Amino acid sequence: MHAPFELAGMAADVLSRIRARGPRVHCITNTVAQQYTANMLLAAGAVPSMTTAGEEIASFVAGADALLVNLGTFDADRQAAIDTALGVTESTHMPWVLDPVFIDRSPWRAAFARDLLERRPSAVRLNPAEFTPLFGEEPGGEASIRAARTHATVVALTGDVDIVTDGERRVAAANGHRLMSVVTAMGCASSALVAAALAVESDRWLAALAALAGLGVAGEIAALHASGPGSFASAIIDALYGLDRAALHERMSVS
Amino acid sequence: MHAPFELAGMAADVLSRIRARGPRVHCITNTVAQQYTANMLLAAGAVPSMTTAGEEIASFVAGADALLVNLGTFDADRQAAIDTALGVTESTHMPWVLDPVFIDRSPWRAAFARDLLERRPSAVRLNPAEFTPLFGEEPGGEASIRAARTHATVVALTGDVDIVTDGERRVAAANGHRLMSVVTAMGCASSALVAAALAVESDRWLAALAALAGLGVAGEIAALHASGPGSFASAIIDALYGLDRAALHERMSVS
Amino acid sequence: MHAPFELAGMAADVLSRIRARGPRVHCITNTVAQQYTANMLLAAGAVPSMTTAGEEIASFVAGADALLVNLGTFDADRQAAIDTALGVTESTHMPWVLDPVFIDRSPWRAAFARDLLERRPSAVRLNPAEFTPLFGEEPGGEASIRAARTHATVVALTGDVDIVTDGERRVAAANGHRLMSVVTAMGCASSALVAAALAVESDRWLAALAALAGLGVAGEIAALHASGPGSFASAIIDALYGLDRAALHERMSVS
Repeated sequence: MHAPFELAGMAADVLSRIRARGPRVHCITNTVAQQYTANMLLAAGAVPSMTTAGEEIASFVAGADALLVNLGTFDADRQAAIDTALGVTESTHMPWVLDPVFIDRSPWRAAFARDLLERRPSAVRLNPAEFTPLFGEEPGGEASIRAARTHATVVALTGDVDIVTDGERRVAAANGHRLMSVVTAMGCASSALVAAALAVESDRWLAALAALAGLGVAGEIAALHASGPGSFASAIIDALYGLDRAALHERMSVS
Repeated sequence: MHAPFELAGMAADVLSRIRARGPRVHCITNTVAQQYTANMLLAAGAVPSMTTAGEEIASFVAGADALLVNLGTFDADRQAAIDTALGVTESTHMPWVLDPVFIDRSPWRAAFARDLLERRPSAVRLNPAEFTPLFGEEPGGEASIRAARTHATVVALTGDVDIVTDGERRVAAANGHRLMSVVTAMGCASSALVAAALAVESDRWLAALAALAGLGVAGEIAALHASGPGSFASAIIDALYGLDRAALHERMSVS
Repeated sequence: MHAPFELAGMAADVLSRIRARGPRVHCITNTVAQQYTANMLLAAGAVPSMTTAGEEIASFVAGADALLVNLGTFDADRQAAIDTALGVTESTHMPWVLDPVFIDRSPWRAAFARDLLERRPSAVRLNPAEFTPLFGEEPGGEASIRAARTHATVVALTGDVDIVTDGERRVAAANGHRLMSVVTAMGCASSALVAAALAVESDRWLAALAALAGLGVAGEIAALHASGPGSFASAIIDALYGLDRAALHERMSVS
């Protein structure tokens, strides 16, 4: 296991590489989250695309460096688009992230998410309410490790403290600010950042950690300038855009 | 009829209850308005969901405390989703709000809105241009009272002065700021706030008034900090998030 | 050819006319861009509508003063809606703008965009990567002139310097700020502003120039107040809303 100081440096390296390389991240995501997710990816230095049309999803994914599959605003067309998109990632070994939004509210969506687990997402980013319908047990650190091992994935369980594990390594990242939960699509955008990080970092655990800790640190900086969730939503994009190595070293809190 | 000071306190109670209970508001709304509506609901303390997929709309509505039916970006799929959603609200007596967006621009949409009136919305929030195609007469205070009585609903007709009536009580609420009309989805978001208020207040007239006056007061506060409609759009979310009883007592203008 | 000072005055006249007349601009645009595009149009003084539903697109376009056809988030339904919408513009001689978003990423979309050229858009707003799949040669000033002549349209090729040509007149407009490329939908919104300008100015070349230079100047003003792309996205809307003749005279850079 790495020392916190070392992890901050490694995370900073990942975020720098996103800016340097500008990876293309194709996002199959819900219409509520599309604009905010695109702006977050641009602020990090990545290049978003968002089409979900069956006729062209394969072209877009084939030209991308990573894929996000977010199940918000789900329907049959999107289900078909996801299937096509995963056909591309499987043949090209492209990394992809599963975000099982709101599967606790829809059994149909939960069943589909469980099927997607079989297609080996590089990482799963989810919140506690979504954990049980996906993995069949109560959320937590040990359960996350078991889930990551069983499905050969990285589990990033976000909340007041984020847990990131690949089944071997586990880290608890305590950055962030409570206003992050008062802005819609913040979780969706964080999953997109994980996808961007996976495009430039083959250690999937480190990629997920770098994305989430980076966003958490940006949230702390944003809170210093915000008057509420409206100004915070903009300020965290500013902070992510300006995030530097020193801020990560100073603020990144992992244990 | 209540004195203005008393109404401000009652409105403050409703808004406090939204924060305390965090009602779930399912929004069938247009893709232009989804993000802003979600952020407005979160700022008020409610929990938004937004799916319109026919396969899971019933699950989402069944798990909600109130429903918004907004006719913007309307199509056949959404029409079917609305029918399914109203089947749930009718069996559970869940409150729901009708927002007949832009029915003055589409006869097909106007006809559908008139059909929805038969399904007894708890409240209708609309602007003057939408009044005539829905209720068949020119907009105004007396016409609003007649419409509310005929359809056993609360009519909230918003403009420079908002009229809120249940057919018995009528109030004119004069809060707000002209920049509110330069931000897209402001009316849509206000309808969602009415739905959130209905989830925690059984007096539908008071619920609608509390939501609209609260947003209007937030708009006045936001205008003090804004440089134009871009910064205003964020500032009103901040102001709604921070809105307190004192601000309502000081600023709420009803007659 | 006009002197720069004269062009600034002419551009200011166009922007003033948008505010005075409030033209209705119907936007068939992607779900990522809808909210930002609507807010940009409102800030300029225009009235946006956004439906893409086949059942009512004809009603909406018939009631509009200009049309935007943006190919982002493209699918078969939208393709049909575009066909219907262009039937209306052709019979009413309404101006319309083509924005061939991301046709470099999808051959299917590129072929459709080329077909749309045959239907005589009043202007085409695109970026360099989209130029070759649409016009069949490398982007540039001379190529833009040839494309404008061949297709009897105005070509607005945006980048660090914007080129606007109707095949006879060509101008290079150098306003703008690098943060404009870090905000999603900025290009889409600029195309919508071109449509708004076309609704009030029959010289299509001047309309396109006024819209793009106006937005570029607003971007420069916004950058003075922004801390990053999040605050910039709001600040440019504020700046466009407050843009005056003096700012255009002072800053508009054309050659």
